[in-house]
Amino acid sequence: MSDPLELLRARYGAAHVPGSASRYAPEAINPVLETLLAHRSVRGFRSDALPGGTLELLIAAAQSAPSSSNLQTFSVVSLEEPERKARVATLAADQNFIREAPLFLAWLVDLSRLQHIASAAGVTAEGLEYLDTFLMGAIDAALAAQNVVTAAESLGLGTVYVGALRNRPLEVARELGLPKSVFPLFGLAVGRPDEARPASVKPRLSQALVLHREQYGTTPIDSGIESYDALIAEFNRSQNLPPARWTERTLERVRTASALRGRDELREQLVVQGFELK
Amino acid sequence: MSDPLELLRARYGAAHVPGSASRYAPEAINPVLETLLAHRSVRGFRSDALPGGTLELLIAAAQSAPSSSNLQTFSVVSLEEPERKARVATLAADQNFIREAPLFLAWLVDLSRLQHIASAAGVTAEGLEYLDTFLMGAIDAALAAQNVVTAAESLGLGTVYVGALRNRPLEVARELGLPKSVFPLFGLAVGRPDEARPASVKPRLSQALVLHREQYGTTPIDSGIESYDALIAEFNRSQNLPPARWTERTLERVRTASALRGRDELREQLVVQGFELK
Repeated sequence: MSDPLELLRARYGAAHVPGSASRYAPEAINPVLETLLAHRSVRGFRSDALPGGTLELLIAAAQSAPSSSNLQTFSVVSLEEPERKARVATLAADQNFIREAPLFLAWLVDLSRLQHIASAAGVTAEGLEYLDTFLMGAIDAALAAQNVVTAAESLGLGTVYVGALRNRPLEVARELGLPKSVFPLFGLAVGRPDEARPASVKPRLSQALVLHREQYGTTPIDSGIESYDALIAEFNRSQNLPPARWTERTLERVRTASALRGRDELREQLVVQGFELK
Repeated sequence: MSDPLELLRARYGAAHVPGSASRYAPEAINPVLETLLAHRSVRGFRSDALPGGTLELLIAAAQSAPSSSNLQTFSVVSLEEPERKARVATLAADQNFIREAPLFLAWLVDLSRLQHIASAAGVTAEGLEYLDTFLMGAIDAALAAQNVVTAAESLGLGTVYVGALRNRPLEVARELGLPKSVFPLFGLAVGRPDEARPASVKPRLSQALVLHREQYGTTPIDSGIESYDALIAEFNRSQNLPPARWTERTLERVRTASALRGRDELREQLVVQGFELK
């Protein structure tokens, strides 16, 4: 069992561990908290197949997550066949870890079941035409997927999300045979971490920047961002990466529409796939 | 420790437990899986304050969740003051459990930090104007919030999401002092469950309807939905609720725009709050 205070120091930097250290005493920490706090995204997988039944257990964890009004507006396509997985990897920014991982889950906003029920009953389904309902499906899918991340890590597996599944979503939809009212939201690669390429706990912004008490804070955030920049530069150095600050990477990512790598077309693509987004 | 097979029977109905039962033998289950599988939403809270440091520990779990490109596009406002919490309860469909719970977390899509960084650097932030970036923030927030649900349950606390925080989001934004580029996504009530009003594991659709292998399934779903309808009617009966089928409740919820309770205006409200959603 890892020392929780060590995990928190890795997460926030030694100077920014939040709250009272006594909460992080080993006897105050349970295996669930330890799993959550120790999260790291894995991008180097061994190719071993997962033990039989793992997929079903992960999906049971996913479906145990809350669902808005119990409408269950998500579905998953699981990919294990190497060739289809490789084609999807190519569509998703050509990321090789998708080919490596024995399991890739494509998480879908799925309003088609509700559409089907309404058609079968001969009633309207106006609610499905609104942006809020798409958003509800996205939230449902994200809650479910995060349960899979936690479940997988408890089993010694590693995961990484793939937002690039939205770079070319209509091609992904064709590859997966998605009907109207179903849209690929993000991917999740799952497999046994390759110990030769270990992942590290990524530092985050201090709680002072993210958690606001009673009202949204109005205190200046520059010094908090400056010290986070230094923390990230040091983290990158420790990973043998160029010591870029957070601010630099972030500005590259948001400066132009073209940095979205096709995702600036999401709205039009959702309409094509049957989401009116009123 | 609960019997995991019992939890799966409650989740799917005895006839639809997925995969091989051997995966659910007590020795194959760890405390993390048990926590995830045993989830139930709590709507009856005791008013006891949470132990000191709990909030910081929950937020550390939240920030340990993955974040797209590490952009960390969410924030949280924590509400503990009874009067403000009561006003927010009124805005969020007047749900009394928000008043009861000692802690209410308002989860926010927050692009204002990135906007601030870009302004300070004197560069554009075109990427923030797109629907995909709002969606990214919503997914970031949902992954983080779900870690809080899991962490809270491991500490013996209960939670329930509040999608109705989007019923009157601009009023919520005023109450919480949200600046432009920050939007209330959903709430989460947290507290000690009131044993006098226990919550139950809610049955879900069978995996055959939600999990698709390699490609989205084309087999008819009517018989699966019919048996789920029976399962939900039985569940409602066991809770001393009217024995409504899933289909009925679902159709009520999606039939008309007015059933969205104001959320049909989400798009316009996001624009007012500074999200262009290009």
